[in-house]
Amino acid sequence: MPLARSLRRTSPITLVLAAVLSIGFLFFIFSPGSNSDAVSTAKRKLTNAAAHPLSPPTAPFVKQDASLEKNKPPPVVHYHLNNVTTTADPIGNQETVLILTPLARFYPGYWNNLLALSYPHSLVALGFIIPKTKEGNAATAALQIAIAATQTGPEAKRFASIIIMRQDFDPPLVSQDEAERHKKENQKARRAAMSRARNSLLFTTIGPSTSWVLWLDADIIETPPTLIQDLASHDKPVIVPNCFQRFTNDESKPDTRPYDYNSWQDSQAAADMAANMAPDDIILEGYADVATYRTLMAMSADKSDNRDQRAVIPLDGVGGTALLVKAEVHRDGAMFPPFPFYHLIETEGFAKMARRLGWGCWGLPNYFVSSKSQNKRD
Amino acid sequence: MPLARSLRRTSPITLVLAAVLSIGFLFFIFSPGSNSDAVSTAKRKLTNAAAHPLSPPTAPFVKQDASLEKNKPPPVVHYHLNNVTTTADPIGNQETVLILTPLARFYPGYWNNLLALSYPHSLVALGFIIPKTKEGNAATAALQIAIAATQTGPEAKRFASIIIMRQDFDPPLVSQDEAERHKKENQKARRAAMSRARNSLLFTTIGPSTSWVLWLDADIIETPPTLIQDLASHDKPVIVPNCFQRFTNDESKPDTRPYDYNSWQDSQAAADMAANMAPDDIILEGYADVATYRTLMAMSADKSDNRDQRAVIPLDGVGGTALLVKAEVHRDGAMFPPFPFYHLIETEGFAKMARRLGWGCWGLPNYFVSSKSQNKRD
Repeated sequence: MPLARSLRRTSPITLVLAAVLSIGFLFFIFSPGSNSDAVSTAKRKLTNAAAHPLSPPTAPFVKQDASLEKNKPPPVVHYHLNNVTTTADPIGNQETVLILTPLARFYPGYWNNLLALSYPHSLVALGFIIPKTKEGNAATAALQIAIAATQTGPEAKRFASIIIMRQDFDPPLVSQDEAERHKKENQKARRAAMSRARNSLLFTTIGPSTSWVLWLDADIIETPPTLIQDLASHDKPVIVPNCFQRFTNDESKPDTRPYDYNSWQDSQAAADMAANMAPDDIILEGYADVATYRTLMAMSADKSDNRDQRAVIPLDGVGGTALLVKAEVHRDGAMFPPFPFYHLIETEGFAKMARRLGWGCWGLPNYFVSSKSQNKRD
Repeated sequence: MPLARSLRRTSPITLVLAAVLSIGFLFFIFSPGSNSDAVSTAKRKLTNAAAHPLSPPTAPFVKQDASLEKNKPPPVVHYHLNNVTTTADPIGNQETVLILTPLARFYPGYWNNLLALSYPHSLVALGFIIPKTKEGNAATAALQIAIAATQTGPEAKRFASIIIMRQDFDPPLVSQDEAERHKKENQKARRAAMSRARNSLLFTTIGPSTSWVLWLDADIIETPPTLIQDLASHDKPVIVPNCFQRFTNDESKPDTRPYDYNSWQDSQAAADMAANMAPDDIILEGYADVATYRTLMAMSADKSDNRDQRAVIPLDGVGGTALLVKAEVHRDGAMFPPFPFYHLIETEGFAKMARRLGWGCWGLPNYFVSSKSQNKRD
């Protein structure tokens, strides 16, 4: 069992919570001025926010009015949350979204795109997991500068809460260069480690009031501002847009190319391949010498301007570049298998696990998000 | 896929958080008197407790001294937790323990045993998940009465935090009677539903500072008071004591009999059985017509008074009656599969998953805990 041994070497994973950052708590104390607008905002925040100091890290805590403290509260506080809904109208129902990002490098383009999301930031919690390496330290520092600027900036842009976790197991590869990362022989170890990072982040940050989890890779720098609303409007348990990468083509013109090969519909060829594999082998998608004949969503896009952006197809595998999941799918137990699960691993294994739990996975072939371009820093 | 269909019928699982109860917050405000003992206790609590209002539900929040609020804090608060350790000396290292119990009925014997645990209650968080049925409502009411009495009682007995979650999917069986519950044909559906309940409870309550998770069934009414310390002292990723049931034997004398058949070492017969099964079939342990010839820990106990209570054996399957797990095993992704995983389900599937992730499972054949007796209410 070479995989089991290689996994064992990276254990135990000890997690280090580097920083919990929030503005909800402090904002209420230093609520700007006393004009009616600010007061009504504060009142709205108080209504929506978790009222109890033991609120989970994914919900903002708002300090109670001082006058309440003078009345002796009962020694045991019952806090009745509303039922958590997960609907096609998440803003109307004030549903909280937890955006989770495994971060190896910090790209300003990622942060700027996050800031531009039009989903109410007061309903959005962010969670990051960053390797404890030199590169990870640099990413943490850059992220914290961006967070400090945002959380002290205009109120509407501030997020409800932000958690940064540091993982201290050795990453399987030193280099985060794209060519090195994507080498087939490195993929299995890399994706097993990525699965563990995703699981640690997920198990530790999801709270009782989380409605949706949006997995967003650190190199996604361009999405429609309505990304969350658009994806949620389909009311699917698991849904993924089509991810492309911008580049300059041979004619020196800006162009896009497929970036995420993990969103696919299964094929008989892949099923036959799996049937003849050793138990611990995995099928990797997107490599020329592994012909699975799966239907790749990356190859099914209509790039015309009048394309149907709401076209939706069922998927058997999903990628994690931008992946919206109803929190109850995760709560049911769907995680990212670091071990071969039906010969699948990480996000593709997650899709299989979600389907084993009775939840469908869906893709939007004509709804695009973009990763950073290959040879250029943003 | 009959299982997948039956699971689909119970979806979506919507979780309802009924109540978050805590004493940490309020105790500090109403710290009894001003004698030096109380002050030093309060100081200790402040040092050990989470200092930030966004602390996860598994950590106590202690309100800051009012004088701190007068100094304007910075608008962004960084909160550096110590590295979370998981060691053989959990009290010495002030490690937090999250005790998780799926509760269908409330037994006073369970609560009294919990209260008697000598692990510092200030380091213990409790989490319950209770079905939204008539019986579940009664259990919730009884539990809340017990909680109110404890959390307003002597400080040393109060727990750091308590979360009660209600699940609103239909339980597969109406009856919780032992004979009905244990019928083989009911086991697969029952244990799939139990897996989902365990996963929902786990994903929602585990926080960044949780060191250990103790799964404790609601009918466990008798353990050594040092249960947590004793299990943790072996420093194993997953460890389970031997669970017995007290009963009155044919000679009208008090006796014990094996209760948990899910802790076992695998056999060639079971492996052969699995090899010839349909993909969605599961092997159930403890039924006469399914002869697995596995080595059951329940049958390996030395019941003599001078037995070696520290004897430890490797296990391939574990039961969940009392199960101590290092939090990093769960964070790695180990959950309770509601679907057949290597033909195993629930806690037995969890053991297989933990082992696939590179973590070993262990049992203590001569260290006993007891479930409530069969025909008698405690």
